[in-house]
Amino acid sequence: MNPSEQGYPVPDVVIVGAGFGGLYAARALEDAEIRITVIDCHNYHLFQPLLYQVATAGLSPSDIAYPIRATFSQQKNTRVILAEAIGIDAKSHKVILRDGELSFDYLILATGARHSYFDHPEWENYAPGLKSVDDAIEVRRRILLAFERAERETDEAKRQALLTFVIVGGGPTGVELAGAIGEIACKVMSEDFRNINPCQARIVLVEGGPRVLPSFPEDLSAKAEASLRKLCVEVRKSSPVTSIHLGGVVIGNEQIPAATIIWAAGVKASPLAQSLGVPLDRAGRVLVEPDLSIPGHPEVLVIGDLAAFVHQTGKPLPGLAPVAIQQGRHAAKNILRSCRGLPYQPFRYVERGALATIGRAAAVADFGVIKISGFFAWIAWLLVHIFFMIGFRNRFIVMFEWAWEYITFQRSSRLITGNEHGPLP
Amino acid sequence: MNPSEQGYPVPDVVIVGAGFGGLYAARALEDAEIRITVIDCHNYHLFQPLLYQVATAGLSPSDIAYPIRATFSQQKNTRVILAEAIGIDAKSHKVILRDGELSFDYLILATGARHSYFDHPEWENYAPGLKSVDDAIEVRRRILLAFERAERETDEAKRQALLTFVIVGGGPTGVELAGAIGEIACKVMSEDFRNINPCQARIVLVEGGPRVLPSFPEDLSAKAEASLRKLCVEVRKSSPVTSIHLGGVVIGNEQIPAATIIWAAGVKASPLAQSLGVPLDRAGRVLVEPDLSIPGHPEVLVIGDLAAFVHQTGKPLPGLAPVAIQQGRHAAKNILRSCRGLPYQPFRYVERGALATIGRAAAVADFGVIKISGFFAWIAWLLVHIFFMIGFRNRFIVMFEWAWEYITFQRSSRLITGNEHGPLP
Repeated sequence: MNPSEQGYPVPDVVIVGAGFGGLYAARALEDAEIRITVIDCHNYHLFQPLLYQVATAGLSPSDIAYPIRATFSQQKNTRVILAEAIGIDAKSHKVILRDGELSFDYLILATGARHSYFDHPEWENYAPGLKSVDDAIEVRRRILLAFERAERETDEAKRQALLTFVIVGGGPTGVELAGAIGEIACKVMSEDFRNINPCQARIVLVEGGPRVLPSFPEDLSAKAEASLRKLCVEVRKSSPVTSIHLGGVVIGNEQIPAATIIWAAGVKASPLAQSLGVPLDRAGRVLVEPDLSIPGHPEVLVIGDLAAFVHQTGKPLPGLAPVAIQQGRHAAKNILRSCRGLPYQPFRYVERGALATIGRAAAVADFGVIKISGFFAWIAWLLVHIFFMIGFRNRFIVMFEWAWEYITFQRSSRLITGNEHGPLP
Repeated sequence: MNPSEQGYPVPDVVIVGAGFGGLYAARALEDAEIRITVIDCHNYHLFQPLLYQVATAGLSPSDIAYPIRATFSQQKNTRVILAEAIGIDAKSHKVILRDGELSFDYLILATGARHSYFDHPEWENYAPGLKSVDDAIEVRRRILLAFERAERETDEAKRQALLTFVIVGGGPTGVELAGAIGEIACKVMSEDFRNINPCQARIVLVEGGPRVLPSFPEDLSAKAEASLRKLCVEVRKSSPVTSIHLGGVVIGNEQIPAATIIWAAGVKASPLAQSLGVPLDRAGRVLVEPDLSIPGHPEVLVIGDLAAFVHQTGKPLPGLAPVAIQQGRHAAKNILRSCRGLPYQPFRYVERGALATIGRAAAVADFGVIKISGFFAWIAWLLVHIFFMIGFRNRFIVMFEWAWEYITFQRSSRLITGNEHGPLP
């Protein structure tokens, strides 16, 4: 039954963004007598940790995307709106949409982050990032098309540039992408061409800092790097990119001609944060209070990648799904407390570990006291990712696809769509 | 081993188009000492009979598409080229590509057909057809977005137009699409909205002729129509469309306001046929000789939807996968005969039946003496479609998706991608 039919005022909770934070917040309010509105500019929740597998032809978009509407079809206090929020008017308690507005009593803002090119927005044309389904399809198109073009190219230098893939950024996404491209080249497509040998592809992972996976312990970084080298990935550390242009990158003074360049370096919070009129950090994230609210407006809570929560370690918590999930649940709990006249409680992140995978049967896992790498870390990685997916069907399909890939070395989504004959890059 | 290394001239067979015809032709030449080049403007073979399921969110594109390159990775006499053929120079034995050309000794032309709007090319903007993966994603976007927009629309007339879906053309594709949209509205999404009842969607199937499925026996047409009515599809027979415009169609003098219009009426052969300089029929198909070659150029064979083969019944054979497959194999056989100095043999189509499905557990099947409808026809439809798919993985996933849909009434690919906020239509 619609709570508003019960004759007393029911608070309106608006949740903007149905990523991990927003979704878990809405679910935590399932049994409450409130009216929830979930707004997202996509009609699906995206399992972003596996987006790189869509970009590398291992999974289909629908394997890692789940209709938001279907998630809440049985949660009758919740409605879902496909709309783009373009601003927040905190004073008058309104979310400004591109085509309208919406009032709230409580607001949970969870619109996440996009990739950022720092002071070089022009690099985006040459080096797409990886945050949305459309990004992933574009990266997949570029990777597969580069091999196709190389097969037909007769000029040796041009062919080598077509077979060169540069990934900028040595965090988990960069490492996972580089490993996956190494596998495609050396294992998946090894027998598919007649004029080129895909194994001769040059895959360069460029990291500005002194090691890959900088958020992991040093020994796991070293193990990840060794696994990457086994997949013929060239790892360039302490190598800031000085230029990205049509057909290549410059590292220091060295020019690397490359048809495919992928950006996995910086992220910037969603621009919606700016409309709040509260202090942001350098990455555009909202410096939230210990209880996840914003200064001066306790009814507005910010969670996930959009929030810079610095009250635990002095540094912002990392932009990971577990942080967003815990914050989403906590924000919901605080709203429920407030409805009952109780004060908000401060948030505390419980770290359960971090994982990154580097191709077939190789991963690193940091569970605090236990640090593992190799096959068992990979199994842990698989299980954790399956566990956090939404929907039995997606879990089953993803498990099947992984088993299939593992046994056959094939990848199921090798489709060039959107613009088969479009430019590269 | 590459046949050319064996020291005597090896014929070059070029196959343009890797649909059913081209693919089966290339496979039939697997053991021959010839050099085969397969050209396609996509990097995948598309299982077109199930394209309507991608358009209606039941399957992912990669479930019905298989990389052409992977198909031939072990067939060492065959190379695959991703390229767009824009003309044939039959006299000088050349295929003209957008970016080059290619010589042949034998050519198999199998580039199929696109939808045609007869004398109204402007209708394409308002009523997309369904021939490629990109078409299917666009149709899916329009269908899902119409429900999303309807949920937020407050004007009753506009809402009704958003919930009206018109399918033009009562052949198998139109019938299958109408049935699938009926299911989505009444079963899949029935609990997902708060302001609209998706079951109130109006689905109109418009057929110019006196019955749906005109190529089937009359009693099966009647049964298909009854099944459609059960899914709340309005069937309008003998109703030629007189106008399609932004926001609606006109049938006779009746105006039907509709946000989503899908074209499943006419097809026209690929324009490549025109460059051959031989007689074409009204749909632009090549009037082939009894042996599938073109007049004056026995080394050029045309098969599948691009060919009008009139030597068996006086009418062209229908544009179905079995026709293309049998013609592909026959063209290959004729080329092998010619290599051995033997004359071509005439082609003869062996009809094994026709099938069409109308939603959940309903189909019609015409196997000549045996005509069935309902559940068993549906099972036959499932099995035949699974059998003709390429690759175990695709077969398995499609079977799983169908079983999942059957049990849960869910559809797995309810994603609006490409242009979430784009215009409708």
